[in-house]
Amino acid sequence: MDTKQAAHLIRNPRLEWNEEARREVFACPIFSIQERTCRSPDKELRTFTVLDASDWAIVVPVLTTPQGKAFVMVRQWRHGAQELSLEFPGGVFEKGEDARAAAARELREETAYEAGSIRSLGVCSPNPAIMANRVHFFLAEDLKPLEAQDLDEDEYVEVEVLPIQAVFQGMGQPPYIHALMGSALALFCKVSSLSEL
Amino acid sequence: MDTKQAAHLIRNPRLEWNEEARREVFACPIFSIQERTCRSPDKELRTFTVLDASDWAIVVPVLTTPQGKAFVMVRQWRHGAQELSLEFPGGVFEKGEDARAAAARELREETAYEAGSIRSLGVCSPNPAIMANRVHFFLAEDLKPLEAQDLDEDEYVEVEVLPIQAVFQGMGQPPYIHALMGSALALFCKVSSLSEL
Repeated sequence: MDTKQAAHLIRNPRLEWNEEARREVFACPIFSIQERTCRSPDKELRTFTVLDASDWAIVVPVLTTPQGKAFVMVRQWRHGAQELSLEFPGGVFEKGEDARAAAARELREETAYEAGSIRSLGVCSPNPAIMANRVHFFLAEDLKPLEAQDLDEDEYVEVEVLPIQAVFQGMGQPPYIHALMGSALALFCKVSSLSEL
Repeated sequence: MDTKQAAHLIRNPRLEWNEEARREVFACPIFSIQERTCRSPDKELRTFTVLDASDWAIVVPVLTTPQGKAFVMVRQWRHGAQELSLEFPGGVFEKGEDARAAAARELREETAYEAGSIRSLGVCSPNPAIMANRVHFFLAEDLKPLEAQDLDEDEYVEVEVLPIQAVFQGMGQPPYIHALMGSALALFCKVSSLSEL
């Protein structure tokens, strides 16, 4: 039995709710909003509002440079925060695509690097309180440069190669404002020797 | 000039968009949805959908135990992910509350610990692509136990004390499914000596 299956078997009736109904109250091309009516451990009914969307992939691309290991990152304008954000590449799964394929594609399109090796770092909920989708984290290594980025018409993305330590130290202040990139860093730590950090 | 001010002065007209209009298209007690019409660096108009909400605080409570340093965490049902999640305490700012006060209050209410010291670990956007609010991370130390939790009527929260290393190793698989707790771990690394991890 793998860890995920084992964890799902840890039930706790003092904490668990049961969903009894849901209805969609808003939809746009990138997400929908549902009202979910659930029964509490004390059998009370409450309604919660949840955002559902396609899953996302985030990929941590590690490049070996003459100065040591570095991250390949992308700088882009973000319409929620209304500022520039320096991030790992990533994005929404396309139809029929699995997590690893989405990670490899986003890496190619946004950074113009192809990965010889892509392995999973873990799967989280971006916010399990209000979001129903998942975010899948990957480590990309053995990077080979391609000719050019392959961006959508409304994507403006600049590629930067940054020392690992600079990204760690910058996280939590502009332009390292994307919380999910912090999640990716924590997962990267799990598979890296501390001497690399 | 502090780092945040300096970073905001790094402008890049090749990447920046300008908002020209916004309208609310959905609202519920915990968030609203806006359509924002923005002009691209190439002067094209596009509309983006953004979720706005009150800011959130997440607090990393560190307890010194006979076995070493440990995190105080909370296990609760999450209605977005529809599963149990083991997390740092945190929540939405109350009206008129600042980030530090929200962190201290959530710590008290959810874990029944009061912090002698609370300091900022950084501020991020939970998802700068589609969310307009911020998440404020804090480190809480010098913890003193209170008599009891102070939960809302529909909150079911169990407190657990966990070794730091176990939380790091667990992140990205159940019950450590909350991506923003990974962000908190990465920020915690910045202020911790590696020997503690």
